[in-house]
Amino acid sequence: MALAKRSVFIVSDRTGLTAEELAQTLLTQFPQVHFMTTVLPFVDSDHKLNEAISQINMIQEADGSRPIVFVTFVNADYRKRIEQADALVIDVFSSFLGILSREMNLMPSWQAGFSHGVIDQGRYNSRIDAIHFAMDCDDGVNPDAYDQADLILVGVSRSGKTPTCVYLAMHFGLYCANYPLTEDDYLDDGLPSTLDAYRDRLVGLTIDARRLHEIRQKRRPDSEYAKLDQCQIEVRRAEDLFRHRGILMADTSGISVEEIATTLLQKTGLRREYLG
Amino acid sequence: MALAKRSVFIVSDRTGLTAEELAQTLLTQFPQVHFMTTVLPFVDSDHKLNEAISQINMIQEADGSRPIVFVTFVNADYRKRIEQADALVIDVFSSFLGILSREMNLMPSWQAGFSHGVIDQGRYNSRIDAIHFAMDCDDGVNPDAYDQADLILVGVSRSGKTPTCVYLAMHFGLYCANYPLTEDDYLDDGLPSTLDAYRDRLVGLTIDARRLHEIRQKRRPDSEYAKLDQCQIEVRRAEDLFRHRGILMADTSGISVEEIATTLLQKTGLRREYLG
Repeated sequence: MALAKRSVFIVSDRTGLTAEELAQTLLTQFPQVHFMTTVLPFVDSDHKLNEAISQINMIQEADGSRPIVFVTFVNADYRKRIEQADALVIDVFSSFLGILSREMNLMPSWQAGFSHGVIDQGRYNSRIDAIHFAMDCDDGVNPDAYDQADLILVGVSRSGKTPTCVYLAMHFGLYCANYPLTEDDYLDDGLPSTLDAYRDRLVGLTIDARRLHEIRQKRRPDSEYAKLDQCQIEVRRAEDLFRHRGILMADTSGISVEEIATTLLQKTGLRREYLG
Repeated sequence: MALAKRSVFIVSDRTGLTAEELAQTLLTQFPQVHFMTTVLPFVDSDHKLNEAISQINMIQEADGSRPIVFVTFVNADYRKRIEQADALVIDVFSSFLGILSREMNLMPSWQAGFSHGVIDQGRYNSRIDAIHFAMDCDDGVNPDAYDQADLILVGVSRSGKTPTCVYLAMHFGLYCANYPLTEDDYLDDGLPSTLDAYRDRLVGLTIDARRLHEIRQKRRPDSEYAKLDQCQIEVRRAEDLFRHRGILMADTSGISVEEIATTLLQKTGLRREYLG
């Protein structure tokens, strides 16, 4: 049976990223339907709003079914006017804000803070600095900066260290370095001296050897580096080291960067620094 | 007047990141209130659920006002049981899924796809590869890989290139390199030869010279690099180059990485590759 089709719009006077992400999450729950999504960010003038409404109405006529429109508007007038489109309009913020407003007996300010703008310049800057820190301290580089690190991720090559560091910087403003374990690091059966001073900030990432083999095989097919044997040896040694030295360990096999990051925040009890 | 206080919980059987982000956005609209937020991810067993409910109820007694609880549960039983807590429970997905379900006359599957797990392994891998690409091609390094790039961001030091590349990789799986313009690049009044072959993939980032001065001043106080004069000269030269060579330009002054990224997607018409 052919998939049903349905047009979807994301319309916002800001980035629309919140609505886009939520829409994507919700729509995957209807796998019987093929959704065709159009994102219209920065709809912040009468002209752009009218164009957006026209576009939605045109698609409605072409499709013969009304488009689903997810909106996040700070502008109250636009929030109201978009409702006139021939569409199912889902206002992501309004319904929740109504509930919260009644609960706390307060009016929402409808101020900045929607859709990923810069709210608190200091906090925003520190998030950007955290991203640069992750770049500057990737892959064992720049250990002199480890005293500034919130976390130092340790693990074999391609165990997920780099993407996790970047994610924690981007979303939580955490300073994360990462250090790859190589053959040399096991010679004295201890932690590399670079890391020893920072033991309380270390997290060991581990991964199923077979999964690691697949990842490495894709990167450097049929290399010594990618061999299953090699992966098994490296993973076992790394896990032994983590256990032996009492280093917090997290398994990254088959889970996403977001899941790894959430697990690390939970295990380490690090604060979650909110985005501005 | 002292701020009112209110406790907030984010409870999920997955990462809870969607609920957390939405909650944060909504709660900033009530600046009169100081919210104390507790995140409880991976609540995926009866035991953990009962613990979460107990914790919420204890806080309710201690606060004397009911906590606000944002939940995203895939598990239907847990969705129902969390409602028994002495709290305002806001189920982020259910209300929207109800609306969508009625509109399309289909039942939601309540399948994977919630809360940032790995859904499509191929897509997930390419997102991870994109992050590694951004790391490997940061700051003008590795120009041999530019033929794989979706975008190459060009601009003076600290105009926002690196965080934007990382964001586009992380969230849209785009391959983005970045190239810093330095004094040497203007000698022949043209594009660096490294870039000339990829003109259709270039985006020039520009920034207000005063803002750049502030950013650099924080990084290397009172250096030649940070001087306002120097910033003005560099910005003017970069903008002249972009105009002269017809390079798409985006101003990053005072806007966030998310806003820059959204602007670039809009200007270039690059597809938005959804997260798994």
